[in-house]
Amino acid sequence: MVPHLSTALTGPLLGLEKKFLAEMPNIEQWFRSQWLDYAAPFYASVDLRNAGFKLAPVDTNLFPGGFNNLNPDFLSLSVQAAQVAIEKVCPEAYRLLIIPENHTRNTYYLRNVVALVNVMRQAGLEVRIGSISPEVTEPTEFNTQDGHTLLLEPVVREGNRLKLKHPELGDFDSCAVLLNNDLSSGEPEILQNLEQSLIPPLHAGWSRRRKTSHFSAYDEVASSFAEMLGIDPWLINPYFSCCSEIDFKAREGEECLSLKVDEMLTRIRQKYAEYNVDQEPYVIVKANSGTYGMGIMAVKSVEEVIGLNRKARNKMSVVKEGLTVSEVMIQEGVPTFETLNESVAEPVVYMMDHFVIGGFYRVHTSRGVDENLNAPGAHFVPLAFEDPCTLPDCADSPETLPNRFYSYGVVARLALLAAAMELQAQDSMAQLVA
Amino acid sequence: MVPHLSTALTGPLLGLEKKFLAEMPNIEQWFRSQWLDYAAPFYASVDLRNAGFKLAPVDTNLFPGGFNNLNPDFLSLSVQAAQVAIEKVCPEAYRLLIIPENHTRNTYYLRNVVALVNVMRQAGLEVRIGSISPEVTEPTEFNTQDGHTLLLEPVVREGNRLKLKHPELGDFDSCAVLLNNDLSSGEPEILQNLEQSLIPPLHAGWSRRRKTSHFSAYDEVASSFAEMLGIDPWLINPYFSCCSEIDFKAREGEECLSLKVDEMLTRIRQKYAEYNVDQEPYVIVKANSGTYGMGIMAVKSVEEVIGLNRKARNKMSVVKEGLTVSEVMIQEGVPTFETLNESVAEPVVYMMDHFVIGGFYRVHTSRGVDENLNAPGAHFVPLAFEDPCTLPDCADSPETLPNRFYSYGVVARLALLAAAMELQAQDSMAQLVA
Repeated sequence: MVPHLSTALTGPLLGLEKKFLAEMPNIEQWFRSQWLDYAAPFYASVDLRNAGFKLAPVDTNLFPGGFNNLNPDFLSLSVQAAQVAIEKVCPEAYRLLIIPENHTRNTYYLRNVVALVNVMRQAGLEVRIGSISPEVTEPTEFNTQDGHTLLLEPVVREGNRLKLKHPELGDFDSCAVLLNNDLSSGEPEILQNLEQSLIPPLHAGWSRRRKTSHFSAYDEVASSFAEMLGIDPWLINPYFSCCSEIDFKAREGEECLSLKVDEMLTRIRQKYAEYNVDQEPYVIVKANSGTYGMGIMAVKSVEEVIGLNRKARNKMSVVKEGLTVSEVMIQEGVPTFETLNESVAEPVVYMMDHFVIGGFYRVHTSRGVDENLNAPGAHFVPLAFEDPCTLPDCADSPETLPNRFYSYGVVARLALLAAAMELQAQDSMAQLVA
Repeated sequence: MVPHLSTALTGPLLGLEKKFLAEMPNIEQWFRSQWLDYAAPFYASVDLRNAGFKLAPVDTNLFPGGFNNLNPDFLSLSVQAAQVAIEKVCPEAYRLLIIPENHTRNTYYLRNVVALVNVMRQAGLEVRIGSISPEVTEPTEFNTQDGHTLLLEPVVREGNRLKLKHPELGDFDSCAVLLNNDLSSGEPEILQNLEQSLIPPLHAGWSRRRKTSHFSAYDEVASSFAEMLGIDPWLINPYFSCCSEIDFKAREGEECLSLKVDEMLTRIRQKYAEYNVDQEPYVIVKANSGTYGMGIMAVKSVEEVIGLNRKARNKMSVVKEGLTVSEVMIQEGVPTFETLNESVAEPVVYMMDHFVIGGFYRVHTSRGVDENLNAPGAHFVPLAFEDPCTLPDCADSPETLPNRFYSYGVVARLALLAAAMELQAQDSMAQLVA
């Protein structure tokens, strides 16, 4: 059950991990005081890359799917964290409406909704699922790939409240609305100006969110954390930059892209020299909004972004829901040195409120260590992230799984904190506009 | 790993459990709003008795030992709850001083301290153990029965702060002092008027606490909860009464005792008739302060408390630390209908802050269903209290373990809430006096 971690490469990360373990009380105190200033998102997942010489977040998802891939042995941990999260949102209420993605034909995604609903129900909430899909016009049961059924009901807006109306189950008026829909296609009118708490808020959706805003906030977090620990922030932070006014189809923006890619490869090369990393630097070019591993490519030289062929340009030009890509983030590529059964693996860490509740390895049998693994063909291996280690000396060896996971939890929480800052800044902006 | 619960007896409790499960959202909402008014104790354990026809707490320990008996698989749940508890006590600090019981020769008790320290360290605290035992005059390593070592250091009072001073480890000045010492022998001067947060507070110790105060508060909690659910509070609440001015050695107070025992047996008999319970009522007479299962007897008729022989009187007259018993609580005996490998068993539920973090069965191979199991010869079986149950319909069958444990968690938290009310009332009193 415990995934085997390849520890053949033992670079500076072991040093970093040792540092994290030794400084655990300082780190936890630092997080405690940060959470006094910033409200943690309700939930989030963070994709990490562990390069051996550095450990960094590469993507932070504020509408996490994949709850079904968490280790069921740790369900109670999710339930407890959900209780804390709910105490903040609805201390005196008990009905929760969950709005999932519209793609009701993705039976794997629906399985995630089943798992999420289960966590919330176990936390003591009355949960129903409201769809904003135009295809769901009456209460309908859907099946997951493994035989669970899920009742989706069309949401009804009454004044500024979202409700459900079911002939047998009756009306449902919830205290809060939990979005598991990343709003890639925009902010539907039906969700605007609600009386109910909408979590996460509308501006957390991909119609407004920019990856570069997140990583700007992460720059701040990583610097402050690295300063506290006395380490180089680069060890936990991938470089990034941005090109706007990109149009892949019209070959617009190539110049910016090649300039930024070149700059970044040079910066990475310098760091690799400083840390004696004997690998070829690469960068990831990805759409500044959006998810699902669409609109993303790995690049090792400037030549690769000049004169892209039609197929590559098409692939880069659209993301989920057919949206056109007009801004890209250029991100330092962090190779993974983790393998699971000889396949390349990267950890994904799940959090609810400010607690780490689990994670899994995203594993790809046909991708390389420097490629995006969030692609068709990936599979998931639940992470048993804490060994029943009650020996007082089990914290001594950083090669063991619980300790490695502590570092993962630290870096994932740094990204969570960045998301909290990012959302808080957007909140202030949204209030200024309103 | 999952203990087998005998469910041969399926009395009204199944009805109660069904009720709890059906009303889970209401119950959890009720708890959430209670915790807005009352601060949960830092930690507690509650002894429950499940009679089949009723499920009730019989003892609430505010200085729980036995952390080593919790299921190690759920360590992460304790750690998460400890993080919440610590956020309230020391949001911006990270040093915790734990003061254990003085009986350093009890290697099993010390094993509990090792487990407790481990939880707190995993929660990210720097923990050291300070002893107030006159026998610990310099930093000393003690061994547990299973080969762990534990460093106990004598506490040093400087002004109104408790500190540790170790020639190599250096000085230790903590934000809070966590007591795992129930103060049976009084409130030592060294712990009085501390600047540091003392948790639980001095008045939670057995030198001031009375079981009858706890169960008075529990009366309130149980009535309010039962009213919310529309059930008879007796189903979750054992009758109790009190005799003061008892002196077993001098045969003083026998009259009060026999009167109260008689009254209570009559009341139980009426309830048994009402619920068609075909069992012989009994009461438990126990010292109104104190723990460790000392000063306690089970009684089925008035005759048993009149003319106690010398041996019985001696046994009843002293509790832990040799204190004389001058007040007793007469408590309705709740038989247990649970057995584990044909031995009588009762669940003990552990909580930290307002979260259930685990539990175990106290099992006694040579005691009956109507006897106190907290006695020499008892052993402990960790409770796996939540099955990885992610099926949406797994809540339907109340016979399964996770569901049974939900009821245990509910009743244990009711007792926790009573403890919170009890401590809050004492806080107010203490402030009036000061």
